[in-house]
Amino acid sequence: MIEQLKGMLDQVREKQPLIMNITNQVVIQQTANGLLALGASPVMSSHPEDARELAQVAGGVLLNIGTLQEAQLETLLEAGKSANKAGIPVVLDPVGAGATSYRTNAVNKILSEVKISVLRGNGGEIAAVTNQHWGMKGVDSVGQGDVVQLAKNAAKQLDMIVVVTGEKDVISSPSRTLITENGTEMLTRITGAGCVLGSVITAFLAANRESDPIEVCTAAASFYSVAAEKAMERKPKGPGDFEFYFRDALYELSEAEWIKQGIVTEGGTV
Amino acid sequence: MIEQLKGMLDQVREKQPLIMNITNQVVIQQTANGLLALGASPVMSSHPEDARELAQVAGGVLLNIGTLQEAQLETLLEAGKSANKAGIPVVLDPVGAGATSYRTNAVNKILSEVKISVLRGNGGEIAAVTNQHWGMKGVDSVGQGDVVQLAKNAAKQLDMIVVVTGEKDVISSPSRTLITENGTEMLTRITGAGCVLGSVITAFLAANRESDPIEVCTAAASFYSVAAEKAMERKPKGPGDFEFYFRDALYELSEAEWIKQGIVTEGGTV
Amino acid sequence: MIEQLKGMLDQVREKQPLIMNITNQVVIQQTANGLLALGASPVMSSHPEDARELAQVAGGVLLNIGTLQEAQLETLLEAGKSANKAGIPVVLDPVGAGATSYRTNAVNKILSEVKISVLRGNGGEIAAVTNQHWGMKGVDSVGQGDVVQLAKNAAKQLDMIVVVTGEKDVISSPSRTLITENGTEMLTRITGAGCVLGSVITAFLAANRESDPIEVCTAAASFYSVAAEKAMERKPKGPGDFEFYFRDALYELSEAEWIKQGIVTEGGTV
Repeated sequence: MIEQLKGMLDQVREKQPLIMNITNQVVIQQTANGLLALGASPVMSSHPEDARELAQVAGGVLLNIGTLQEAQLETLLEAGKSANKAGIPVVLDPVGAGATSYRTNAVNKILSEVKISVLRGNGGEIAAVTNQHWGMKGVDSVGQGDVVQLAKNAAKQLDMIVVVTGEKDVISSPSRTLITENGTEMLTRITGAGCVLGSVITAFLAANRESDPIEVCTAAASFYSVAAEKAMERKPKGPGDFEFYFRDALYELSEAEWIKQGIVTEGGTV
Repeated sequence: MIEQLKGMLDQVREKQPLIMNITNQVVIQQTANGLLALGASPVMSSHPEDARELAQVAGGVLLNIGTLQEAQLETLLEAGKSANKAGIPVVLDPVGAGATSYRTNAVNKILSEVKISVLRGNGGEIAAVTNQHWGMKGVDSVGQGDVVQLAKNAAKQLDMIVVVTGEKDVISSPSRTLITENGTEMLTRITGAGCVLGSVITAFLAANRESDPIEVCTAAASFYSVAAEKAMERKPKGPGDFEFYFRDALYELSEAEWIKQGIVTEGGTV
Repeated sequence: MIEQLKGMLDQVREKQPLIMNITNQVVIQQTANGLLALGASPVMSSHPEDARELAQVAGGVLLNIGTLQEAQLETLLEAGKSANKAGIPVVLDPVGAGATSYRTNAVNKILSEVKISVLRGNGGEIAAVTNQHWGMKGVDSVGQGDVVQLAKNAAKQLDMIVVVTGEKDVISSPSRTLITENGTEMLTRITGAGCVLGSVITAFLAANRESDPIEVCTAAASFYSVAAEKAMERKPKGPGDFEFYFRDALYELSEAEWIKQGIVTEGGTV
């Protein structure tokens, strides 16, 4: 069904949406660079008032709890509420939910105070947020369960779009499920691959407001995975080379090449 | 007039000045690496007492508000005041001034409490700080006005050197204006290009205390832009390759090559 | 004696230990990427409760004071104490000890409240922590003294393993000293080379609990230095290229190649 996603990448590059990221210290630079490579316009904030104002002019907001502390939680909540008022999409990345009670509690607080458009996490994180059984190691998911069912259950329970990333990415709304089949194992050898995808999804949503959000999220995940495959075609010796080939691919991969190489399947009804 | 700037790069490499950076989370690593590649010695600080002590032994201090919050504002003010006492140059990068009232107010507070040697920003930021008309999108400048006049007005109003970066860099004191004509559009596709330039300017100032500061700032901006052109000669496929070719160029570009390729013009009297 | 270290790298790659890093903002991304390239599993934390919980499931904890402020000091102490309870190794990197009284005091507080397994720093930092004479410039060591004697004295005084990095790395316990002779000057042109080594040492310790800790620390330092030499074999034009070749080398350098190229000598009794 990838043909239906055609045009969504070019929308990002034409509209260059302003994306506000309240994100973790590990990936903050990579996030800015990923969005710039893609053609979007990143902005970051560390102060509640600053974030509230910026959310009013942004096209979308990404919230990520990877190195959360109290002051950032306040900033994050302000950003989310302000985005809700402005009617722009809010994507939540619950990094390490389930790994500690501090993180799990923070996610619950965010979900209760901010209307989230899309939740993006690995299997373990999504399972933790929705009390499903799964395996975690630190902030990495090591579960081997049925990821499609996991995503479907989560989307239904939370009544939002859920993107579970891993070997395959599963994108599920309460009523429909799509699966992207591209990518490379090398993505697990660089930090922040999932985190940056959260921001890329936000940019796609901001630039494609007229389209079906589940298809927009799928377009973002599919484009991202195909870009990773393009990076592997340059034969990196390791994750150092790969990271920068990947960033180049976010910049130079065309809509046509992506659509040609991307594989997206329907995951059945929920 | 580029011949007059000759020798200023070698001074940095010989003296290896210690530069303290109170900067934003997005660019903090890139700043350290940019200064190391250039041959300077970076140090960072996140605590007021720590920053106050370090400013006493540094050759220059860079202040950047890109991810400002309250604790960092305190650190930044301490660093600036301590640098003033030590008589070393202080460069201010007002990232996103004009984008939010929080940032604009912070810049005003800094300008009122710390004697700034050089203000470096894009057109929108400099316009916001000096109440001139311009266009902003998030923290990016999208104005199309007369950047030379903008810089001249700002330098006169603030009575300091102002560096407005963009397609051309305009460096203006209250009495003289210089323009660098090098660079590449690819610099807009990596984060932190302007922020790191602020630290490079600080390093040039620290190592060239006997020279005319407007010429020293121009040397820094010109060298930086020529290094970016050198990086483009290696034909990067995108911003990933470019960023590291650029860092290599900061390391390997010689004084002679820079002077040969650099174009600097006088911008007329203020 | 390098043959005695054989197998320690493969242990890291097989066990993929979870390493918690409470580290500075400059190197936090590079630390995550270095550990992932090596084959370990990084996790970061910025909140005391979060850190306390994570330390209970981690294989080792790295503490680094490079951009310390009050909230992080609290997190760092919680992480250390929790690691002590869990009986896992704790490595301390006293970045800039001696450069400011704030840093020196923080290190003393940490040493008094947390049982540290390994202290890793440059000569100036180790000298500052142990009140020995040495030279500092900002957070960089510029002393020219007898680094072997410095390490021996520090290990004896603190009753722990001390790793002094520089042109040679000297690893000393209270009763034995080892020296690694590999490496490249280019490591001084990228930020965080020493900081990431602290995390690599932590990963080696976590994966080799049955082995003699001084030999494990030496294996980590030796592997890291040989990886840097491998990166130089790809002829980087500067520190930009080098950093990513080095990360690739952490990923692809085999146990056999490392052992073949590594040079480790005994440093005499203490």
